[in-house]
Amino acid sequence: MTRFRKYVPLLDWGRSYSRDVLADDLVAAIVVTIMLIPQSLAYALLAGLPPQMGIYASIVPIILYAVFGTSRVLAVGPVAVVSLLTAAAIGKIAEPGSDQFITAALTLAFLSGGFLLLLGLFRLGFLANFLSHPVIAGFISASGILIAASQLKHILGIEATGHNLLETGASIVAHIGETNAVTLVIGVTATAFLFWVRKGLKFLLVRIGLAPRIADFAAKAGPVAAVGTSTLVVWMFGLADRGVATVGPVPQSLPPLTLPSFSPALWAELAAAAFLISVVGFVESVSVAQTLAAKRRQRIDPDQELIGLGAANIGAAFTGGYPVTGGFARSVVNFDAGARTPAAGAYTAVGLAIAALFLTPLIHFLPKAVLGATIIVAVLSLVDFSILAKAWRYSKADFAAVATTIVTTLGFGVELGVTAGVIISILVYLYRTSKPHTAVVGRVPGTEHYRNVLRHHVITDQRVLTLRVDESLYFANARYLEDRIYDLVAQRPDLQHVVLMCPAVNAIDMSALESLEAINERLGDLDVIFHLSEIKGPVLDRLQRSHFLDQLTGRVFLSQHQAMQALAHDPVGPPGAGVTVQAPKKLGDTRNSLAQQRNYR
Amino acid sequence: MTRFRKYVPLLDWGRSYSRDVLADDLVAAIVVTIMLIPQSLAYALLAGLPPQMGIYASIVPIILYAVFGTSRVLAVGPVAVVSLLTAAAIGKIAEPGSDQFITAALTLAFLSGGFLLLLGLFRLGFLANFLSHPVIAGFISASGILIAASQLKHILGIEATGHNLLETGASIVAHIGETNAVTLVIGVTATAFLFWVRKGLKFLLVRIGLAPRIADFAAKAGPVAAVGTSTLVVWMFGLADRGVATVGPVPQSLPPLTLPSFSPALWAELAAAAFLISVVGFVESVSVAQTLAAKRRQRIDPDQELIGLGAANIGAAFTGGYPVTGGFARSVVNFDAGARTPAAGAYTAVGLAIAALFLTPLIHFLPKAVLGATIIVAVLSLVDFSILAKAWRYSKADFAAVATTIVTTLGFGVELGVTAGVIISILVYLYRTSKPHTAVVGRVPGTEHYRNVLRHHVITDQRVLTLRVDESLYFANARYLEDRIYDLVAQRPDLQHVVLMCPAVNAIDMSALESLEAINERLGDLDVIFHLSEIKGPVLDRLQRSHFLDQLTGRVFLSQHQAMQALAHDPVGPPGAGVTVQAPKKLGDTRNSLAQQRNYR
Repeated sequence: MTRFRKYVPLLDWGRSYSRDVLADDLVAAIVVTIMLIPQSLAYALLAGLPPQMGIYASIVPIILYAVFGTSRVLAVGPVAVVSLLTAAAIGKIAEPGSDQFITAALTLAFLSGGFLLLLGLFRLGFLANFLSHPVIAGFISASGILIAASQLKHILGIEATGHNLLETGASIVAHIGETNAVTLVIGVTATAFLFWVRKGLKFLLVRIGLAPRIADFAAKAGPVAAVGTSTLVVWMFGLADRGVATVGPVPQSLPPLTLPSFSPALWAELAAAAFLISVVGFVESVSVAQTLAAKRRQRIDPDQELIGLGAANIGAAFTGGYPVTGGFARSVVNFDAGARTPAAGAYTAVGLAIAALFLTPLIHFLPKAVLGATIIVAVLSLVDFSILAKAWRYSKADFAAVATTIVTTLGFGVELGVTAGVIISILVYLYRTSKPHTAVVGRVPGTEHYRNVLRHHVITDQRVLTLRVDESLYFANARYLEDRIYDLVAQRPDLQHVVLMCPAVNAIDMSALESLEAINERLGDLDVIFHLSEIKGPVLDRLQRSHFLDQLTGRVFLSQHQAMQALAHDPVGPPGAGVTVQAPKKLGDTRNSLAQQRNYR
Repeated sequence: MTRFRKYVPLLDWGRSYSRDVLADDLVAAIVVTIMLIPQSLAYALLAGLPPQMGIYASIVPIILYAVFGTSRVLAVGPVAVVSLLTAAAIGKIAEPGSDQFITAALTLAFLSGGFLLLLGLFRLGFLANFLSHPVIAGFISASGILIAASQLKHILGIEATGHNLLETGASIVAHIGETNAVTLVIGVTATAFLFWVRKGLKFLLVRIGLAPRIADFAAKAGPVAAVGTSTLVVWMFGLADRGVATVGPVPQSLPPLTLPSFSPALWAELAAAAFLISVVGFVESVSVAQTLAAKRRQRIDPDQELIGLGAANIGAAFTGGYPVTGGFARSVVNFDAGARTPAAGAYTAVGLAIAALFLTPLIHFLPKAVLGATIIVAVLSLVDFSILAKAWRYSKADFAAVATTIVTTLGFGVELGVTAGVIISILVYLYRTSKPHTAVVGRVPGTEHYRNVLRHHVITDQRVLTLRVDESLYFANARYLEDRIYDLVAQRPDLQHVVLMCPAVNAIDMSALESLEAINERLGDLDVIFHLSEIKGPVLDRLQRSHFLDQLTGRVFLSQHQAMQALAHDPVGPPGAGVTVQAPKKLGDTRNSLAQQRNYR
């Protein structure tokens, strides 16, 4: 029973649902519904799908998320990046507008829902971590540009295609002569108006005396005003006959029952894209949900989020929708408008269902240019390349990952872009840990502290070499450690002991274990004894499962000081023989004292 | 000049070449030459190539490696695993025996030589580290079984194909009715003889009074005896007419000048396989070279090894060879026979050139079954599945990687096998670090040590939470850290300070930086102050390049004790208020004292 409840959060918040909460949720639902109508139409257009599919994708998914999701305020539905990924995935296998195209969209929603559910049931949400923050930031910005470019054709009233910036640009240039002047005027006016609504209107309304909250709501209704006005203008002046592309006839219907395809061939073609969409959608959704939950000291459960989003996508597949996820803009609006439980989402779904039933005839003359303008204004607000400067300053490795993601996304499209970002993040990380920071250490006089001989005045013993390694030992750096030790030993012919000091070694995998065995054996061949010091408990536990500690020629010391007490006074020579105070090499004194201040070790 | 010398190690050891060294090198060369003749023929057969290509692949490559390589004793030429990878790669794009097949082999050698050179020039040898020790061990064992299975057809005298165990097995079963009885007798006899030579002969020879060194040499010559005797038998009794497949006519020639193909289409088809071959070959070669170098306290330079092997492969491409690398068996023989410089390799090359010129007519009647037996006996000695038991005992993660590699190699062939091994190693590593070990810590009474509250009797303060994290912070675990802190904070309503203790944090990447910023901001919203303690110098340096330390609501403490002195006596309450001695939870006292003994922290 508890287990069942864990998978259905509705059972928790539903029991304490009161009239107060109902009122708050209803207000939020009305605000969100008004905002979602144009947005849903526009994103369906972006995905290359009939506009009503955008509305359908916002109805059943939002209800299923309300039952299974853990965020109180996340609004699930079509979003820009996922719509673009959908267009890229199904554009490769079917002609836009064809039946196969629509079936492919339904199937894509079904598959990505399936992936999300599987990841959730097996608690594999950590996979989403492979999309690092900077990679996501770069990807979202580059996608924003791709999306805006793809909408230029609607503003110009021409045909154009392309899944990356070069293709789209070339296609627009090739068709620019076919620009429809009336469409262009409508498109540019709508874009300018929407930018102004977003930037200037609220400020103006507040200045003329409106309450900030009402001014804010009026600004949110800007797209609705643009949609209404432009539709009216096109209808009144018969502009459709002058070449202005409009949405055209839209069926008046609740979401229809639909079936995704179960063809293995289609599944094989869509699987990789569906996986990408589920991961990208999940990451976007979870960051929005976490940000909003933290503001009210609430928690979300990422693994349960996978189940909520999975259910939403499968719902979309069976009710005429396409891949959905938690959207940033709609969730923030829902939160700001005072939504307190997922029931607000359910009420929004009712509002959209009413719209789908009764309002669709009204958008027959809605010009596509205005929907394009809505998308452009929405996505350009996501574009922020300051991540490049920030990454450059902080870490060249992160910069490489971001820059690769941006360039690949713009040049080769969204799918390759996000894949390249993930791969390079992993490579860069492995590269960094493959050459870990190591330091030969000696004792700081008068203390039991052992520090880098290059940075501190320390005491060393010419018969004992202590190397501290500042990284977990695993396959990517195991060989490097061997190299480093052999190099050091080759330079010191009078060496009798090597101590590997491991205070920052959090794990030793089997490759590293074999390297330690090899080091132990090869040093043994040279009559050099190999010791370990300051190994962490869990690491030592694991080493005890192997035969390494039996074979070790030397000892395992709890602390480096114990090691030096035992080894530096080795009976081979008189106590203290061979002990030298070693001055730091290479670094000057200024840097050195700075280093001490900063607790360099 | 020094830079040039770095790339041509010959200039170092060549200057001190003496008559003594010459004698040692010559003896080793003779031993190795005798061993290499049957081995080279056999591996060419394994790759599906004409037998003389095996000899050619051992001549020029060995000389080029002598000039550019850093190991004194590595013997470069065809090896079993690389031959199998070659067969898999070129078998997909051309019919065995056709001209295209041979051109593809030359091109594959050229491309993998090119990759090796590039990796060497850009010092990217670390990429080979992605092949973890256990994955290599599993891969070599599984390949050994695949190779042995692929040679059964020669023992049976039938036709069979297949790039994995299922295909090969099915193909052999389908053709088993065509078994040639005479071939089977020769093949089984040769296999039994070669196993006996390897296991029993040396022991016997020593017992009858031969010097161990001579007995060893005699055992090494076993394959030559098998080849000679069987050829003689087939020729004398005209067994070729009774269906025994033989090597057939082999041209008498020095290595011919050949050209790889420069067709971009072919390059595209072979690129992935060539990259795999270069990495697998490099890893195999470097481990052999390192093992042997360490025995004489010599060093090899892995990046220079890439250049040596790259030159050898490009040499193979232009002289009728196919992909080569440093072989285990031949190098050990070279070492044991007393080789002291790479010149021994050059003398071996001369010996093989003489063989190619004068001895090839003698092998016309050499039965393929005997070559198959040579391969089977050689590779089965590499098969060792004890790695599975060892990995299971040491770490389930490593076990998963090894088991996946073995199963994929056997079931889907070598290329997928090694790729799967690399991918799963990386995934397993990222998974492990994605949920790092963390511990809420308190002060051990009477000391300045801070330990896990679950393992030790420690003093904590109810207004201060200290979390120690035992892993570098990066994209794979940044979100986990956020989750962990928010969960802890949500349970402690009277919390005023959170201290993140970082003694084992070796790096903080940009994703983790953004998570720290988010934690700082969200805790700030809840009026909880966020501090850091025991940050390492290099990590702190990097943080100072961002704005994080300016935004941090709390302070950066050099030591955890300083943090607690400052925060636990916070002026909010009287000194010591809220301080409680906390007994360890969950773990019993026995475990706890054990933990202390083992220096759990």
